[in-house]
Amino acid sequence: MHHTGFLFTDHYQLTMAQLYHAYGLAERTAQFDYFYRANPDYGNHQAGYAITAGLGPLLAWFEATSITPSDLEALARVPAGDGSRLFGPEFLGWLADAGSFSSMRISAVPEGRVVHPNTPIGVVEGPLAIAQIAETPLLNQLNFASLIATKTSRVVEAAHGGDVLEFGARRAPAWGANAATRAALIGGASATSNIGAALDLNARSAGTHGHAMIQVFMAVAGGELEAFQAFADVYPDDCVLLVDTIDTLQSGVPHAIRVFEELRRRGHQPVGIRLDSGDLAHLAVRSAAMLDAAGFDAARIVLSSQLDELTIWQIRNQIVDEAPRYGVDADALLPRLVYGVGSRMVTSDGDSSFDGVYKAVAVADDTDTWQPAIKLSNSPIKMQNPGRKALWRVYDRRGLATADVVSLAHETLEDRPLVLLHPDQPGVERILAVDQVGDVERLLQPVWAEGRSTGTQGGVEEARRRRQLDIDRLDPGVRRLVNPHRYHVSLTQELSALKRKMIEQVSDP
Amino acid sequence: MHHTGFLFTDHYQLTMAQLYHAYGLAERTAQFDYFYRANPDYGNHQAGYAITAGLGPLLAWFEATSITPSDLEALARVPAGDGSRLFGPEFLGWLADAGSFSSMRISAVPEGRVVHPNTPIGVVEGPLAIAQIAETPLLNQLNFASLIATKTSRVVEAAHGGDVLEFGARRAPAWGANAATRAALIGGASATSNIGAALDLNARSAGTHGHAMIQVFMAVAGGELEAFQAFADVYPDDCVLLVDTIDTLQSGVPHAIRVFEELRRRGHQPVGIRLDSGDLAHLAVRSAAMLDAAGFDAARIVLSSQLDELTIWQIRNQIVDEAPRYGVDADALLPRLVYGVGSRMVTSDGDSSFDGVYKAVAVADDTDTWQPAIKLSNSPIKMQNPGRKALWRVYDRRGLATADVVSLAHETLEDRPLVLLHPDQPGVERILAVDQVGDVERLLQPVWAEGRSTGTQGGVEEARRRRQLDIDRLDPGVRRLVNPHRYHVSLTQELSALKRKMIEQVSDP
Repeated sequence: MHHTGFLFTDHYQLTMAQLYHAYGLAERTAQFDYFYRANPDYGNHQAGYAITAGLGPLLAWFEATSITPSDLEALARVPAGDGSRLFGPEFLGWLADAGSFSSMRISAVPEGRVVHPNTPIGVVEGPLAIAQIAETPLLNQLNFASLIATKTSRVVEAAHGGDVLEFGARRAPAWGANAATRAALIGGASATSNIGAALDLNARSAGTHGHAMIQVFMAVAGGELEAFQAFADVYPDDCVLLVDTIDTLQSGVPHAIRVFEELRRRGHQPVGIRLDSGDLAHLAVRSAAMLDAAGFDAARIVLSSQLDELTIWQIRNQIVDEAPRYGVDADALLPRLVYGVGSRMVTSDGDSSFDGVYKAVAVADDTDTWQPAIKLSNSPIKMQNPGRKALWRVYDRRGLATADVVSLAHETLEDRPLVLLHPDQPGVERILAVDQVGDVERLLQPVWAEGRSTGTQGGVEEARRRRQLDIDRLDPGVRRLVNPHRYHVSLTQELSALKRKMIEQVSDP
Repeated sequence: MHHTGFLFTDHYQLTMAQLYHAYGLAERTAQFDYFYRANPDYGNHQAGYAITAGLGPLLAWFEATSITPSDLEALARVPAGDGSRLFGPEFLGWLADAGSFSSMRISAVPEGRVVHPNTPIGVVEGPLAIAQIAETPLLNQLNFASLIATKTSRVVEAAHGGDVLEFGARRAPAWGANAATRAALIGGASATSNIGAALDLNARSAGTHGHAMIQVFMAVAGGELEAFQAFADVYPDDCVLLVDTIDTLQSGVPHAIRVFEELRRRGHQPVGIRLDSGDLAHLAVRSAAMLDAAGFDAARIVLSSQLDELTIWQIRNQIVDEAPRYGVDADALLPRLVYGVGSRMVTSDGDSSFDGVYKAVAVADDTDTWQPAIKLSNSPIKMQNPGRKALWRVYDRRGLATADVVSLAHETLEDRPLVLLHPDQPGVERILAVDQVGDVERLLQPVWAEGRSTGTQGGVEEARRRRQLDIDRLDPGVRRLVNPHRYHVSLTQELSALKRKMIEQVSDP
């Protein structure tokens, strides 16, 4: 199983590593930054922020993984273009000793935090060849998890406090499903249908029954009513009935109400119904009217079927419009809604990849002095920030985040007024006076050293809480689902000057 | 690790299974069909077909997986709404014995085949509760793999014979990356950057070096030229140089040519260059002009950066337009192109989920007679075809596929003329005379019985070949990348009559 071990990496990481080894550079200390270039853009709407996720599983994998004899044998058989061996015995011998991630140190923004583009949210320092090989698994785990945590955070915002249930396993990307479940929980989902992942993560699993159960009863054991009765019989205190197998308003809801009345007589509280097709807003209002009339005005209404942040937003608006026409109080109905969200959340429909990248920013020279590295590009936004850096969040006096600032590693951000430079428009600056600056927070924390997680970031539950805290400290304009306000990311004067100097040196050697 | 074992399923599959057990239905034989409703639609373009994939890993997982004592203990602790236990000892006792997939039989269309919407491409028959639990892992594995194989097939079509390299691991969905690699190879990719997966699948891995290597040399060991020289030194017969770190035409290509000349003097054949940013079509033409002038007119030009089927199509068109202006022969240049395709292929950008579903179609009654099952829906397209069925492909006399036909299980499709009914427009029929019908092929094959794969479908290489064969037998209109011709899917008269009868029965009980 090379594909889940140390060789879960790109071919070129190993060819580069061998070259570094051949040129005596393999063990040079290098620093790579993990950052992303733009918030997810779903086509007709764009995120105003991203949520970090994936670090926990990545570090667990780093801890569990090192090169194996079987990996080395497999590498030794990879052919070069002339039929000889691509990977030679010197390199493989070195890799047999050095092939683990215990020689790296990692600082990162912990999981569940709000982050912004073009800031170093992960920093890896270690032997050049090892830090190079780590690129692929790091990007693979962090990019996908952050993508899904970000999408989920938006769905949760749209739900306005209503429970969001992650229902995506059947359309999630194969074994990426479990990563999606974990990221969705970090992003704010209350529970998941993926029971295996829930048990492993100590989270709540959710679900009741599908259409199949009704169909089976219709085929061999009665019909919809008998199926509902059986369900209420086996699960009297967990009774959510899926009402759209035949006809929601003509059959499903009336049958559910009959069963709920029986349950009530037996002293149980029915939980609610689920709508999985049709005009969900209209059906929610009509179902609520029927449930209310029968005295079940606390029954939950679970909505599912192609939901995402925009459909939830529209459904809630439509309910506010339609409810009065059917004598339903929208303010009472909206808090009864629960959202089962699947495919569109676990695949981040509309923008299915997170453009996180991992770039060399500094390498130690032969006197062990850090030398900054840079890659030029025709578009200034793609020019990375060179050198060893720190990342700060500046809050205003109300406690709202007002800017993320990238500095060189030795800077402290204590000067006031605080001068912040635009990351790619030279000369554009923003000056924050003493009374405009509240707390200044250092965002990067040491998360990996000496072959293990430092354990400071906790698990899924801690990450969930960090997300909620950070969201509460965001400007409402940045949280907006469509056309959000652009959050400020700035450089310090020192970093900006270094970047300018390096660009000039490389462009005009 | 419940999340990779038997409990990698949805919570509601287990609540339904327990209900079936309580009502004596758990071991009733049931049949579920796997089918999908529409070809992937990428927004501004839509697929005209899909490619099956994922069955190999699914069957391997079925074979390796059964319930464990740890799973049972975890389930026993899941709380019900009143604080009692959701799963009772009777059910868990039954599951301890029955909790494996060895009691199922599966027929399926083998991997790598062209398939069409609303046809049964997988058929599971087995004890109701087990076949129900199998729904989630089956959909999870088949949907994602088919999604990626389909997208890749389109990219490969756009490449017109040029090699497509799967470069997606860094943005692929966490551990779904390996499934994406496998599916991409089935879809026609020639090689992958994911070396671990390539070694496990006995496929070719590909890649050379990244920008990091150049940056490292620039920081501590010279510059781009020295980096290229080092690469050519270590990999004289696999020398593809990435030329866009500083400036493609001013620095990268001239340096590459210097190094290629040294290589040639030493008796090696340089492989080519890679372009990873900027206007790829323009840069390919300009680079080709420089390479040709230096006598490297066979050097490959690898293109990467946000490629998909439409960008490749556009790049090829632009090259045909621009090449003459720079004295380059487009007909000679196009076959030298190689495409490194990442994020957009391994996430199926534009349509990130495959809407395959798994529906109960028949259940044995208490006299062991099959009873067909159906689910109604307000949209006829969502009404599944009831009962136990067969799937056929009808070829015309030229050997091109002309229709896929769904029949009842006992039908043989031997009648001529062949009367085909529209799947959801009653009365619309198509009649194929004797001279319009060539071969008629049965598409479903037994793939799983007695707890193991029947081994008939082979591995990735066989699936790749099946894809090519099937693509060659498709009408060019159906293969078209944009606005493809709609392929005919039809029902036999007998199946159509049963479907109509059941809809009437359920609608008007």
